[in-house]
Amino acid sequence: MSLVVIGSVAFDALETPFGKTDKIIGGAATYISLSASYSVKPVKLVAVVGDDFPQSDILLLEEHGADTEGLQIKQGEKSFFWSGKYSNDLNSRETLVTELNVLADFDPIIPDSYQDCKYLMLGNLAPQVQRLVIQRLVNRPKLIVMDTMNFWMDVALDELKTTIEMVDVLSINDEEARQLSGQHSLVKAAKIIMAMGPKTLIIKKGEHGALLFCKNKVFFAPALPLEEVFDPTGAGDTFAGGFIGYLAATDDISFENMKRAVVHGSAMASFCVEKFGTERLLNLTQEEIEAREQQFADLVAVVPATAVQNA
Amino acid sequence: MSLVVIGSVAFDALETPFGKTDKIIGGAATYISLSASYSVKPVKLVAVVGDDFPQSDILLLEEHGADTEGLQIKQGEKSFFWSGKYSNDLNSRETLVTELNVLADFDPIIPDSYQDCKYLMLGNLAPQVQRLVIQRLVNRPKLIVMDTMNFWMDVALDELKTTIEMVDVLSINDEEARQLSGQHSLVKAAKIIMAMGPKTLIIKKGEHGALLFCKNKVFFAPALPLEEVFDPTGAGDTFAGGFIGYLAATDDISFENMKRAVVHGSAMASFCVEKFGTERLLNLTQEEIEAREQQFADLVAVVPATAVQNA
Repeated sequence: MSLVVIGSVAFDALETPFGKTDKIIGGAATYISLSASYSVKPVKLVAVVGDDFPQSDILLLEEHGADTEGLQIKQGEKSFFWSGKYSNDLNSRETLVTELNVLADFDPIIPDSYQDCKYLMLGNLAPQVQRLVIQRLVNRPKLIVMDTMNFWMDVALDELKTTIEMVDVLSINDEEARQLSGQHSLVKAAKIIMAMGPKTLIIKKGEHGALLFCKNKVFFAPALPLEEVFDPTGAGDTFAGGFIGYLAATDDISFENMKRAVVHGSAMASFCVEKFGTERLLNLTQEEIEAREQQFADLVAVVPATAVQNA
Repeated sequence: MSLVVIGSVAFDALETPFGKTDKIIGGAATYISLSASYSVKPVKLVAVVGDDFPQSDILLLEEHGADTEGLQIKQGEKSFFWSGKYSNDLNSRETLVTELNVLADFDPIIPDSYQDCKYLMLGNLAPQVQRLVIQRLVNRPKLIVMDTMNFWMDVALDELKTTIEMVDVLSINDEEARQLSGQHSLVKAAKIIMAMGPKTLIIKKGEHGALLFCKNKVFFAPALPLEEVFDPTGAGDTFAGGFIGYLAATDDISFENMKRAVVHGSAMASFCVEKFGTERLLNLTQEEIEAREQQFADLVAVVPATAVQNA
């Protein structure tokens, strides 16, 4: 089922306790697209880069299932650039450089061939830009999933709330859920945020897993306990890409299927953090992905005592 | 199967964002005993109090399944007293008062009637006192579970390691696991700690659930997302009591059964935090406990897509 993804396609420069990179391909839409491509192709990309963005990186996205008709290349301008440094425990990061460049006045153009969009993933961007995409689609998609971050809560809360009201699923982390709702308890936070519009809420807790809320139902997917996290960059976007890719591939937006999509997204994110940047997402096999999903299932599997007694 | 529990029986004075208490009954062995009593009776208590400890509180423990033959009452001395104040988000607490009193020179005496001990729970205490109990049991119990805290890592690390070497299961929280192992990754920490002696390790992550490690196997039990946590005091001890109570009742120390014991312990802990102190542990029904365990199972339950396709 046709999937459209909007978000940043950008340069990142990363520093973790394990090393540092020069400018490498990054951005929310990059991770989302790569991750979703393991479930569904093409992933119809809406994004903008400058003329400094290498053709080889665009080819890389295309080779991994991206339709780049909606990727604007701005002549004479530079791509969005973010540089960050992680703390030793990888639990916090410091932004060293943010250069908006082409993102400063991004006007998302939707190619006609994208108008069949049934699944729309709004990667982290200014909420007014995310909203433009919804407005420019002639028919409302079957499912709109939105990712955002605390920055927009700080600088554009009203715009953010207006966009949140229009989406089906909101994906944020635990601290963002607390900030957006003003509630420390995630159960209370979820109720308040779902009252803002989204019928479904995903709260990402990083190494502590993810919660999926829908009305009065709740599902919890653990994160895999990993021996080593190499680079957390893009994990949340990879999760979101896996989540919507799975839903688009199965074309089933029931709560039961969303649970499976959360587990799939968690599995994809667990690969992402194993190497720098997008590296680990470039050459996964379906066998590796299925084995990882099985690890997630095994991690929480309990045989009820009654089943043992009856066996 | 006979269960012996050693730990503090004490007074606590608690302050949370929801209110404060005067001196109420507390202590590791109190919570462990109350929690375990829902699985197995009697719970044979080894502890010490002063003559200020009300007879009514001793009766309360007895009415909830405790055998108090091993509870020493020191005439002319005062009971252990701890007072603490929780932060607004309940994630940290400040110790206001610690009066060791009778615990300062606690010499644990094991009544003859406790010598049939098959399951031994060493609640948090000085590690040399915990070790004395092991040494004073004529036959080694089938299973020894030990709880401890960062305090002993700070002031008595060698003593602690000597005791840890002698137990089967160690139960600590995530920060303590990191401190004890010197590793941030909990997977790496678990390997190092299991190499210290215990074949099985439980890492409690509070609101983020608990991990059970045994050799190269790992199990994760989530915590229930709660709308309101009223008072976290005793949650870890209640978990430990539920864990060993379940194992003692089923007399099965396989990894599969330990998983069920972790879920049972998590369920018991989720009750504990709903009210001040021990209050919620005093009048639970088996129906309530089973319903809560079912909530834990439902929280992580995923029907595989293949099962749906085949249905």
